[in-house]
Amino acid sequence: MNHHAAFLADFATLSTFGATERGGVHREAATDADAAQRAWFGELLAARGFRVAFDRIGNQFGLLDAVPGAPYVLVGSHLDSQPFGGRYDGAYGVLAAAHAAERVAARWRDSGRTPRYNVGVVNWFNEEGSRFTPSMMGSAVYTGLLDLDAALDTRDLRGVRVGDRLAELGQLGDGGPSLDDVAAYAEIHIEQGRVLEDSGHTIGLVHATWSAHKYFLTVEGEQSHTGSTVMADRRDALLGAAHLTVLAREIADALSTSDAPLHTSVSQLTVEPNSPVTVAREARLHLDLRSPDEAVLARANAMLHERIPSIERAARVSISVAGAHHWGVRPFPAAGVALARDCADELGLSHREIMTIAGHDSVNMNGRVPTVMLFVPSVEGISHNEGELTKDADACAGADLLTEVVDRLTAGTLDGR
Amino acid sequence: MNHHAAFLADFATLSTFGATERGGVHREAATDADAAQRAWFGELLAARGFRVAFDRIGNQFGLLDAVPGAPYVLVGSHLDSQPFGGRYDGAYGVLAAAHAAERVAARWRDSGRTPRYNVGVVNWFNEEGSRFTPSMMGSAVYTGLLDLDAALDTRDLRGVRVGDRLAELGQLGDGGPSLDDVAAYAEIHIEQGRVLEDSGHTIGLVHATWSAHKYFLTVEGEQSHTGSTVMADRRDALLGAAHLTVLAREIADALSTSDAPLHTSVSQLTVEPNSPVTVAREARLHLDLRSPDEAVLARANAMLHERIPSIERAARVSISVAGAHHWGVRPFPAAGVALARDCADELGLSHREIMTIAGHDSVNMNGRVPTVMLFVPSVEGISHNEGELTKDADACAGADLLTEVVDRLTAGTLDGR
Repeated sequence: MNHHAAFLADFATLSTFGATERGGVHREAATDADAAQRAWFGELLAARGFRVAFDRIGNQFGLLDAVPGAPYVLVGSHLDSQPFGGRYDGAYGVLAAAHAAERVAARWRDSGRTPRYNVGVVNWFNEEGSRFTPSMMGSAVYTGLLDLDAALDTRDLRGVRVGDRLAELGQLGDGGPSLDDVAAYAEIHIEQGRVLEDSGHTIGLVHATWSAHKYFLTVEGEQSHTGSTVMADRRDALLGAAHLTVLAREIADALSTSDAPLHTSVSQLTVEPNSPVTVAREARLHLDLRSPDEAVLARANAMLHERIPSIERAARVSISVAGAHHWGVRPFPAAGVALARDCADELGLSHREIMTIAGHDSVNMNGRVPTVMLFVPSVEGISHNEGELTKDADACAGADLLTEVVDRLTAGTLDGR
Repeated sequence: MNHHAAFLADFATLSTFGATERGGVHREAATDADAAQRAWFGELLAARGFRVAFDRIGNQFGLLDAVPGAPYVLVGSHLDSQPFGGRYDGAYGVLAAAHAAERVAARWRDSGRTPRYNVGVVNWFNEEGSRFTPSMMGSAVYTGLLDLDAALDTRDLRGVRVGDRLAELGQLGDGGPSLDDVAAYAEIHIEQGRVLEDSGHTIGLVHATWSAHKYFLTVEGEQSHTGSTVMADRRDALLGAAHLTVLAREIADALSTSDAPLHTSVSQLTVEPNSPVTVAREARLHLDLRSPDEAVLARANAMLHERIPSIERAARVSISVAGAHHWGVRPFPAAGVALARDCADELGLSHREIMTIAGHDSVNMNGRVPTVMLFVPSVEGISHNEGELTKDADACAGADLLTEVVDRLTAGTLDGR
């Protein structure tokens, strides 16, 4: 079986874990379906000569030691999915990483060549953040951006604790290389947008992340009767949340341009008490503002804060920020982009530079170690949806490119650049 | 102990079941707290000479048979509460019914007088409808407005089935009088508004219900990525639900007047999948329109339907009606209002006629049997809230009034009127 057929066969097997009727997957972090695919993936890695280990937050590693004691080039992504999500998001990158590492190791054996670095495949824990917040949890702990104990103490909406659940699944350990033992990181992912499809390129060379403001907002009202309470007496937290949701879209409509797009959203709205005959006393929601243009993002952020007081008056609620994250446009290393471009040129793959809007584990690794981030096209940009699709030819092209990138990274090509 | 002290002492005990830190109660239908208070209430009734029985939907009866074979005057309300609700809503009326029936029976014994009808106290199952939809479930089944099997098959958001849970609690039976054996019904309830407080009256003589449109709406969008999906591609079900929520308030603002108020609300919003990084594919919500003026309600309903298509276009969603209920202004029997007015005058209690905005079990009984509905004041109109309060003097005055009403109803005073 050639590389492409082998990759597609493994990917078909992987896509059976948590498979949904409409062709997607439903395997949030540390669910039974996620645990089953991790067990399968561990067996796959072990059968192909990798040493498999979990670290203290449940990141899963497959390590190939060609040079005893040498640092690792890590390559990977995540196998967990959104609820009723697509089968490519994350999973594609993990499987491509395993195949790339295996192919590179075979080249070492076949050629007798000794690399500078070892190679390690990583399946980060809970990238999606749909069950346990925040997202990119495993890579955040790994890179010191999130406290280990805080992560282990995180609970889902049913009260299940990350640490307890991972222990129950036997997916906690003290293995894997420390960050100090990592020489570089590479990740390939589906674009989740339609830039590559629209421009007709096979490969996206990710050169930067969009800037973003992310808010976790609490709207406080007062519980009352939906029928009998006089309208003027109501302090309706759900109405306040609805105004925020509409405002987020209005901000995008007002400020987004084709040159400097602005993406906004409200998501994960929870309402207390969510009774059919009770005006809500509290609502909690996530509100995101994202743009590749920091000036546009700043205007969006200003407009949000300018408008909140009028929403508070209209719904007679108070709105507070329970959590906030902000980051500016963050570049990936130019040398990594150049390395990937060279590889794509050698393989004859069309490519373009692109920014990533979504967060990825590579965003956490970037700045800590030299990091290369690659995209392949998403059909119609559909993502976090069971209809998510990347064509087989593009998926295989990406795996080929990742193989070349890993080969060069393990050879030390980025060293000193 | 006099009647008032005895009533307040029992009410204090009743308020301990599911008591919350802020002075409310948290005892949704068929929860442990609801089961415990029903057990306590059954023991109280039995100790005072009532024959206790459950019917096939878990309505709890306490029957006093003074005239073997004669029909019953039923008097009652409900003990279940909203989540973190108030301690008066329903519970006040059930306990007042038990005390009124006991006092009337004592009069029969003391005077040697034989009534025309027996008296029965009823604690209706699941009036609130917060855990199991619809509300007023027990009285709806009892009056044939809701199918018994459909009610028993209702499940809460965790999948618990009404029939299974009631059987587990030992609160299903085949007792209680059939509707054919009921001569009249009386209920006393807190107003849950501020009409009585504002006008300075102790008693509200309920002469009619507000008209209402109640909709259960489904908003269908498409699941996608909150970050990377291009704004123009989004079909955001939560945005559609937010527009509906804002619209409901706009309709009230546009059409409500002091002479013909209009109350509107959106409640119990659920979002799928409720992930922080996923544009919602579906939202479901309750939308109510209520008015004492049927013309105003009709204009509100028209405005709602006129505006839905523009919301569908704005959020690129489809909105469908998954369920709808409508009722016009419905009068309570004038003879019952007159009977209650006479009793209030004799007791020297100030009174006024009033409409009920909220639904009550009496609304289901009304039209089936002669029904008398009474209100006592709610401080500041606060309801479905832990701060719900009716002053002791008002609560006791209401219990006195209900006693007189039950005395006259069991004497057959309404017969033929």
